[in-house]
Amino acid sequence: MAKLLALSLFLLLSSCFAIREHQPHQKQQPQQNECQLEQLNALEPDNRIESEGGIIETWNPNNRQFRCAGVALSRCTLQRNSLRRPSYSNAPQEIFIQQGSGYFGMVFPGCPETFEEPQESEQRESRRFRESEQRESRRIRESEQGESRRFRESEQGEGRRFRDSHQKVNRFREGDLIAVPTGTVFWMYNDQDTPVIAVSLIDTGSFQNQLDEMPRRFYLAGNQEQEFLQYQQQQVRGRGEQRRGREQQENEGGNIFSGFKRDFLEDALNVKRHIVEKLQGRNEDQEKGAIVKVEGGLSIMSPPERQQRHPSRQDEEDEDEEDEWRPHHQKSRRERERHNGLAETICTARLHQNMVSSSSPDIYNPQAGRIKTITSFDLPALRWLRLSAEHGTLHRNAMFVPHYNLNANSIILALNGRARLQVVNCNGNTVFDEELEAGRALIVPQNFAVAAKSVSDRFTYVSFKTNDNAAIARLAGTQSTLSGMPVDVLAATFNMDRNEARQLKNNNLFKFLVPPRESERRAAA
Amino acid sequence: MAKLLALSLFLLLSSCFAIREHQPHQKQQPQQNECQLEQLNALEPDNRIESEGGIIETWNPNNRQFRCAGVALSRCTLQRNSLRRPSYSNAPQEIFIQQGSGYFGMVFPGCPETFEEPQESEQRESRRFRESEQRESRRIRESEQGESRRFRESEQGEGRRFRDSHQKVNRFREGDLIAVPTGTVFWMYNDQDTPVIAVSLIDTGSFQNQLDEMPRRFYLAGNQEQEFLQYQQQQVRGRGEQRRGREQQENEGGNIFSGFKRDFLEDALNVKRHIVEKLQGRNEDQEKGAIVKVEGGLSIMSPPERQQRHPSRQDEEDEDEEDEWRPHHQKSRRERERHNGLAETICTARLHQNMVSSSSPDIYNPQAGRIKTITSFDLPALRWLRLSAEHGTLHRNAMFVPHYNLNANSIILALNGRARLQVVNCNGNTVFDEELEAGRALIVPQNFAVAAKSVSDRFTYVSFKTNDNAAIARLAGTQSTLSGMPVDVLAATFNMDRNEARQLKNNNLFKFLVPPRESERRAAA
Amino acid sequence: MAKLLALSLFLLLSSCFAIREHQPHQKQQPQQNECQLEQLNALEPDNRIESEGGIIETWNPNNRQFRCAGVALSRCTLQRNSLRRPSYSNAPQEIFIQQGSGYFGMVFPGCPETFEEPQESEQRESRRFRESEQRESRRIRESEQGESRRFRESEQGEGRRFRDSHQKVNRFREGDLIAVPTGTVFWMYNDQDTPVIAVSLIDTGSFQNQLDEMPRRFYLAGNQEQEFLQYQQQQVRGRGEQRRGREQQENEGGNIFSGFKRDFLEDALNVKRHIVEKLQGRNEDQEKGAIVKVEGGLSIMSPPERQQRHPSRQDEEDEDEEDEWRPHHQKSRRERERHNGLAETICTARLHQNMVSSSSPDIYNPQAGRIKTITSFDLPALRWLRLSAEHGTLHRNAMFVPHYNLNANSIILALNGRARLQVVNCNGNTVFDEELEAGRALIVPQNFAVAAKSVSDRFTYVSFKTNDNAAIARLAGTQSTLSGMPVDVLAATFNMDRNEARQLKNNNLFKFLVPPRESERRAAA
Repeated sequence: MAKLLALSLFLLLSSCFAIREHQPHQKQQPQQNECQLEQLNALEPDNRIESEGGIIETWNPNNRQFRCAGVALSRCTLQRNSLRRPSYSNAPQEIFIQQGSGYFGMVFPGCPETFEEPQESEQRESRRFRESEQRESRRIRESEQGESRRFRESEQGEGRRFRDSHQKVNRFREGDLIAVPTGTVFWMYNDQDTPVIAVSLIDTGSFQNQLDEMPRRFYLAGNQEQEFLQYQQQQVRGRGEQRRGREQQENEGGNIFSGFKRDFLEDALNVKRHIVEKLQGRNEDQEKGAIVKVEGGLSIMSPPERQQRHPSRQDEEDEDEEDEWRPHHQKSRRERERHNGLAETICTARLHQNMVSSSSPDIYNPQAGRIKTITSFDLPALRWLRLSAEHGTLHRNAMFVPHYNLNANSIILALNGRARLQVVNCNGNTVFDEELEAGRALIVPQNFAVAAKSVSDRFTYVSFKTNDNAAIARLAGTQSTLSGMPVDVLAATFNMDRNEARQLKNNNLFKFLVPPRESERRAAA
Repeated sequence: MAKLLALSLFLLLSSCFAIREHQPHQKQQPQQNECQLEQLNALEPDNRIESEGGIIETWNPNNRQFRCAGVALSRCTLQRNSLRRPSYSNAPQEIFIQQGSGYFGMVFPGCPETFEEPQESEQRESRRFRESEQRESRRIRESEQGESRRFRESEQGEGRRFRDSHQKVNRFREGDLIAVPTGTVFWMYNDQDTPVIAVSLIDTGSFQNQLDEMPRRFYLAGNQEQEFLQYQQQQVRGRGEQRRGREQQENEGGNIFSGFKRDFLEDALNVKRHIVEKLQGRNEDQEKGAIVKVEGGLSIMSPPERQQRHPSRQDEEDEDEEDEWRPHHQKSRRERERHNGLAETICTARLHQNMVSSSSPDIYNPQAGRIKTITSFDLPALRWLRLSAEHGTLHRNAMFVPHYNLNANSIILALNGRARLQVVNCNGNTVFDEELEAGRALIVPQNFAVAAKSVSDRFTYVSFKTNDNAAIARLAGTQSTLSGMPVDVLAATFNMDRNEARQLKNNNLFKFLVPPRESERRAAA
Repeated sequence: MAKLLALSLFLLLSSCFAIREHQPHQKQQPQQNECQLEQLNALEPDNRIESEGGIIETWNPNNRQFRCAGVALSRCTLQRNSLRRPSYSNAPQEIFIQQGSGYFGMVFPGCPETFEEPQESEQRESRRFRESEQRESRRIRESEQGESRRFRESEQGEGRRFRDSHQKVNRFREGDLIAVPTGTVFWMYNDQDTPVIAVSLIDTGSFQNQLDEMPRRFYLAGNQEQEFLQYQQQQVRGRGEQRRGREQQENEGGNIFSGFKRDFLEDALNVKRHIVEKLQGRNEDQEKGAIVKVEGGLSIMSPPERQQRHPSRQDEEDEDEEDEWRPHHQKSRRERERHNGLAETICTARLHQNMVSSSSPDIYNPQAGRIKTITSFDLPALRWLRLSAEHGTLHRNAMFVPHYNLNANSIILALNGRARLQVVNCNGNTVFDEELEAGRALIVPQNFAVAAKSVSDRFTYVSFKTNDNAAIARLAGTQSTLSGMPVDVLAATFNMDRNEARQLKNNNLFKFLVPPRESERRAAA
């Protein structure tokens, strides 16, 4: 009885939760005619911003294909010991880790600071940490006498240990998909030698974005331009509108603190002017940018992870590695709840999942390749984002059968190798028939038919989809659209005899991936 | 206990289902000013495409009224033994069967092929079926030796019986409303002498449509232009944009297979080139079009139905005829589940319901007429589409009281007879005051007030509404907006005395349909 | 067991309800570039329409800031004994009662008329009521002989008492927030000496609005122009489109009845022509307008309320005053249901709640001020509207810390006093740094950072938010975005040492409102 009640309450909570959290995340329609595309192009980033600790590359969001899909794409490369400074965006965001590993954090308003430094275990702290501690202790405190009563705990005794606490920090690795909700502050950090390459899709057409379709990054630090500002200016200039004078612009910084007057921030934060100036990035070298080098590296508090020091072995692990150090009976229960989405709240929600670990592809054919999809069934947080993703590998001459996305646009980014892709629009016209090579993105609008054939030994791609449960309809193979229709209907439809219609329905026994013909395999060998 | 658990699970499933399936189906807003309409027009189709087996007529979706409502309308006439070839659209679709009966099918990706030909009952098959079987057996099989190992079952032994299986096929009849989800392949077939007339509303303003507002049909066969292409071209030309050369266009076919290269399709389907060429509609007569004649007719596997051979008697049946051959206790349970929406999954969902059967109108007055509405409470599949519909009949001089649609646009198509309609906008201006005659459509935007009075003995119409639970507010009659207000408020509002205000509230005792005055009835007799 | 079943059914109902009612209420995106704002302005109403009983002022909805936020703002002042005539709008609406008290009513189609005059208690009626009764009885009834059978109850015997019944009437008072769903008829009446000032936000960007973004009022009475018509005309003229001739316009009235032909209304309402003419406002003085004086006042049936005659004492009451006269055990149960939203149906839903009563602010600091928010958790009806609101008071020199709205645009209207506001966009530019004075509105788009400091003894404001669960992220203070990040990440982000980063995280112990510095408090004293 008690269990039933608990279940019922779960149901209640889950439906309330669902109602509150899921609804504001749908896809908006592009402007008129934006999708009457007679030719698609494989697109490269057309801008590159160098920072102290890495590079940010952006695809032009004003390109008609991106406008049709209502998304913006960018790629960030982080060097060792580099930090992507915290920022938030006006739309939900999916980040795919193409390479490398490190830490990321998000800050959810109202959620508790659940990572706390221990009180009586200083001895276990790293030496570096204590050294920096001592350096700071030597600094002269500059607290005003007049403010002391107001902020009675503002600076604790010098001798006492400061115990930091903050919201959850997560470890990411190659192949992870990270879900970043609208307006949520996000930072990431590379603590390894391998540069981190992170591809980010911002779904500006989402209903969570109540601004216009322009992607925006709101940085909390630095005085660099946000990476999409240039495109905004282009567009506004194009419309002949006036902007404020350049002088004024240049005097102003690039982060959301720099727009506030100093006295406001001094009052709001109760800190000295020199700290406010650092907050505003006022005297900072403009070249520093959105990615900064951290000398000596960051010391980040995170639970002990097995194999953390052996990134090369991580690819073989299960994607739920974060659970592995839990007792097994606990895990299995949490697992269950996780996968029906009941136990998730925004504060404890899982925010990333691996897409390329070898153990559990969704579609697999040893001669053709593999495909893994992450929908909101795998990663419930995607429900808030209304986004999903797919990662695929195709062997040489293997094909992904002709298919279309029922309920989503698809943004395909080639990661390795090359494949020939063909895309067909509603008029039956070929709108793309080229090789897509690593580093280029192709947008396949909803309902457009697409097929791919690898011309490399391994063609790998990631495809972002603008629906949290994106579905495809296959136009060939077992259980495809063709095989769902009566053979007589097919025969009449295609003006063929029943035997030919049967061949259409039955000759290809593969569902998604078709291995190369034997002759091709032999030629390749 | 077990039952409670089952109920709870149902709840869980239904809410998950709801969350996944219902949300992406809302209505988007038209462009700026699109609805500042000072004059409405009763619209006729302005284009007509003849096919081998029928006609497709379209209303211009670029008409401002259609742009305001965010919908596209078309009408298809199917001759006997004609098949509307399979196609899918970029938005949810409601099809109303104005006349005739036949079969339709949809293909849902991932759903099983649940209609299977029996193995040991060949003797019960029709003669025609076996004859065509023999013809095919006589054909020379053309399987390549090199491919034999790869597709070991591609062609079964000639002597063996090929057992077809496919997804559900449904029978439709006059007055049915069919719900076609976005991107879902749909075909229909007329097996009777009466031509089938099917009116289709595509809700391009739906959130399921992530492309622009242009309606699109993606045909799986033929080399005809999709019926809305012409409007697309107009619009693009109007904006002075360049299109690809005509030559190239003409070389390409009109279906989604024709845009793929032949080798891609040969590989994907493992069929010979001549089959691919038929798939692509390459050598097909362009005049064949989207509706093809089937010589000798199609043999479609479907459960034995009572009165199937007596279409004239079907109108008298209950709309749930498909349940009638089930044991009664089963039916009533299924009925219950059906109407609370619990037992529906996309694979087994009911996709059509009759609107004109005489047994159960929602509003009925023997002297005035009848109205039947189909919302998502009647046909849960409409929740995915976010559409509903209403069918009405008005006797001569009977009125539908002034009312407005609270939460939907309404697209009224006159089916028979004529009625005088008046429509008023927010400025109090008459934007329509004309007779609407059979075959013409009138768009009544959300919140615009409308009233109708029949000038024929029987005026019948169907009204498509852009909300799955469209609601109206009546401005006259019992329980109307006027009677919901205190009599003193009415008196002050309209500057009249209490007695007059009471007359406003109470004089008309009818709620929806007002019968003609006695004098009018006598004159008509 | 029975209880569990009941709970389960509640769950079912609530989720169905949720699905039906909540979804069509989301926010649409503004046109391209509409939100690339480099300068915000504090806006005043730019138009003023005088009526017999009050004034309606409107802010220009074509202003770019309003277009970005997708809302329209207006303010209505009602004199004593004045009635705002019934109207409905094409989008959900929040009304804030800045001053005064009175009655309001809404009419929901299909809901029963639950307020009924008693049959045997005439003696308790007021004298005025009976007098008007007698006057009316003296009037000659004009019922047509021919119609008598058709409307057998249209006029009851003269001697018999007419018993009025109508839908719920509510009492509002200063500080109330009223939720008006799309298309719902709304009227309000001032029965006190203090003029009522009501500020109304129409969320034209809502998905409930299927027309274009122009706000529209559909009046049920009068022949005045609806208050937003002028802006519509401007815009249409701007595009060079033709409108119908002026003559025709002037002949037509201004309410939705005036657009129907007289004979239609006579038939639909079964009343005489002179009543129809009053309905259509034909011979009415155009100056009367949307707010009419009621001579002698309205007698409105409503349950006896404590302190109803002492409006000055009402501000001290709890906002749930309407429950106070219920037995306590009932109330607490109703309270529970209310707050989980289960027991609400559209017919009995609570539609208003007080925001300024002193007993329960959400954020409170006696030295700094107070803030009260009303979300759909407080007032479940807001779920249908997808809107919420916030009311705040700041003491002199107290601050609201820098913060941003995660998921909503915010429309701030200063009610009393002045405060300095700063707003920052994604480029780090100050887009507003001015004093906002009483009567002016400022739009703070989603994700833009904002902070405020009062320059008056009491600065009060109301802020409308375009999300029913609008959330803010604070950029300073305890549990802010800064304190959610590890101190090392902060130090690296802002290029400071750990000690400075700690100060950023910890120096301000206040969460939302920061009291003035002691020096400022002393200076003010």
